[in-house]
Amino acid sequence: MNIIKVASDSRSTAVAGAIAGVMREQDSVDVQAIGAGAVNQAVKAVAIARGYLELDGIDIICIPSFVEVTIEGQERTAVRLGVERRGSEAAPPTSEPEPESEPEPESGGPTY
Amino acid sequence: MNIIKVASDSRSTAVAGAIAGVMREQDSVDVQAIGAGAVNQAVKAVAIARGYLELDGIDIICIPSFVEVTIEGQERTAVRLGVERRGSEAAPPTSEPEPESEPEPESGGPTY
Repeated sequence: MNIIKVASDSRSTAVAGAIAGVMREQDSVDVQAIGAGAVNQAVKAVAIARGYLELDGIDIICIPSFVEVTIEGQERTAVRLGVERRGSEAAPPTSEPEPESEPEPESGGPTY
Repeated sequence: MNIIKVASDSRSTAVAGAIAGVMREQDSVDVQAIGAGAVNQAVKAVAIARGYLELDGIDIICIPSFVEVTIEGQERTAVRLGVERRGSEAAPPTSEPEPESEPEPESGGPTY
């Protein structure tokens, strides 16, 4: 699993380039940040990456969540932005699963 | 259009409650923040709101972008988090639209 770690002094355009690079090849990447400055850079990077990827016809969305991480023996709460292609696993399950093959139409009723 | 404005001293749980309240009724809401502290609170609020809305079976995603806003005559760049229901406008159109009403089952065939 890819994780891009962002610090408060990360350049948002550089992080955006990294996000775009991964998203051109894969369906998702996690961007992780600890602290307000880092979260801000991470969110801006996703916004900038959207612009980069738009040119490739790739539409990305993000899913924020919290994760506990241990850094130098200290437990910290990080913000994770799960970046995904829009609609890649987004589509809600249809009420009926698509059949593997088209069933025979039943218009004629049973033929026995 | 709904805009929830977030400041660096906004409580993220309160903002999360506001996001969840709108998203229970509507398909989208914009969350706007200026500055690292405010953006951080906004992102955390979306993560918390995801938890609230999960209980209602609502899955939200967010789309970060930049917007220029004028505050007291000063032009500022805000971060806007477009919050949407997952798949609401994302899902590719299904090959057949869902029928308005359930068609009669055809198991018995015609009864004339």
